Amino acid sequence: MNSSTATADRTGSPAERLASLGLTLPPPPPPIANFVTHVREGNLIYLSGQGPREADGFMHTGKVGNGGVNVADAYGHARLTGINLLAVLQDALGDLARVRRVVKLLGMVNAEPDFEDHPSVINGCSDLFIEVFADAGHHARSAVGFGSLPGNITVEIEAIIALHG
Amino acid sequence: MNSSTATADRTGSPAERLASLGLTLPPPPPPIANFVTHVREGNLIYLSGQGPREADGFMHTGKVGNGGVNVADAYGHARLTGINLLAVLQDALGDLARVRRVVKLLGMVNAEPDFEDHPSVINGCSDLFIEVFADAGHHARSAVGFGSLPGNITVEIEAIIALHG
Amino acid sequence: MNSSTATADRTGSPAERLASLGLTLPPPPPPIANFVTHVREGNLIYLSGQGPREADGFMHTGKVGNGGVNVADAYGHARLTGINLLAVLQDALGDLARVRRVVKLLGMVNAEPDFEDHPSVINGCSDLFIEVFADAGHHARSAVGFGSLPGNITVEIEAIIALHG
Repeated sequence: MNSSTATADRTGSPAERLASLGLTLPPPPPPIANFVTHVREGNLIYLSGQGPREADGFMHTGKVGNGGVNVADAYGHARLTGINLLAVLQDALGDLARVRRVVKLLGMVNAEPDFEDHPSVINGCSDLFIEVFADAGHHARSAVGFGSLPGNITVEIEAIIALHG
Repeated sequence: MNSSTATADRTGSPAERLASLGLTLPPPPPPIANFVTHVREGNLIYLSGQGPREADGFMHTGKVGNGGVNVADAYGHARLTGINLLAVLQDALGDLARVRRVVKLLGMVNAEPDFEDHPSVINGCSDLFIEVFADAGHHARSAVGFGSLPGNITVEIEAIIALHG
Repeated sequence: MNSSTATADRTGSPAERLASLGLTLPPPPPPIANFVTHVREGNLIYLSGQGPREADGFMHTGKVGNGGVNVADAYGHARLTGINLLAVLQDALGDLARVRRVVKLLGMVNAEPDFEDHPSVINGCSDLFIEVFADAGHHARSAVGFGSLPGNITVEIEAIIALHG
């Protein structure tokens, strides 16, 4: 393992892979309205939509495409959103090794009407989950454009996660 | 219990809480196309998207934000949408006491592109479910902006509900 | 059975119904980014969003409504999208007879902001599933308008499918 490559150790635990990526999970973002961040139902956890919230609370905002937020920046916001989803999971489970499979993502891009590259944006989250969970991180998903998002955030992602029994 | 306060009795059954809120459920809205209002799969019920349909069939329409429909009105529409979701559940289950947990909502707001307060709108439904189901009403959700909705309705909400075994 | 009527034989197997409709499934479309086309979790399969991709790879593009793509054409695109979802299922299961129930669709229309007839568009997929799976094809769904879709495709649909145990 050579953490200086910033490539996750795919043979270690999710916590070890996070460390090898140089990532530290923040506290889980608090819900911004009358809902909870997750519900466990059987062996599934349904994660509420999270956004590109920095650890200090700063939210990345703006429309993606057409002179607004570019794809590279939005990719980073999707990765940050993934980190926040992991923070909720970590808080809920205590150990990310309890994750058996990332089942499904809905990747929501706050996009200009003529934007066409939503998949490249949401890859920011998908790539992270595969780095952290290896094969268990491969998921079904849709990555699509919304007309508006809360607080004009650039990206929001919700997820369904399967747990070990 | 004092129904004049319009505060649900959180110790009673869902039916008693509805009564204490002064709410009567309408017949379930008929599907407007080739689908069904709900599918039960194991202990989950998947509810098709419902809208702000009054008992007489009138639908509330318009874009939310920017001089269009305001947040207070749209909150009411989300609450009405929640009543219609409950009507489908009541029809499907016979007794809302069979609900074990509201698992997940997708709250869809027909919003202007610069609208930012989707959570306050969808709280209309979330607040209702917590009033009716108490702790079992707390759910995961995303509340986001769509470019358009069927018939130009202001709000549409779909849900996943867990049942007692 | 009279396949010349283009009406599916509702008493046969899904494969026989496809044949009676004159439909041949293409190879499953490859994922266009870092995700997989489906994840099985228990008796459910979560299908990633598919689009109106012809067998030769051509994608139907444009906004639906207001002088753009009309409803009849978009209905056809939703049907084609359904064929692609079936192609993924066929590839995953080997035999569509393993499908116990189409549980839920999310029908995403790349629509102009004033478009109102999303249900008629997504019926293209819903009608196909009922033709192929008969009663097991009836599903819960939402059919709504997105501000933009990948590659400016007209329609995208994701699905949850229940399998025989």
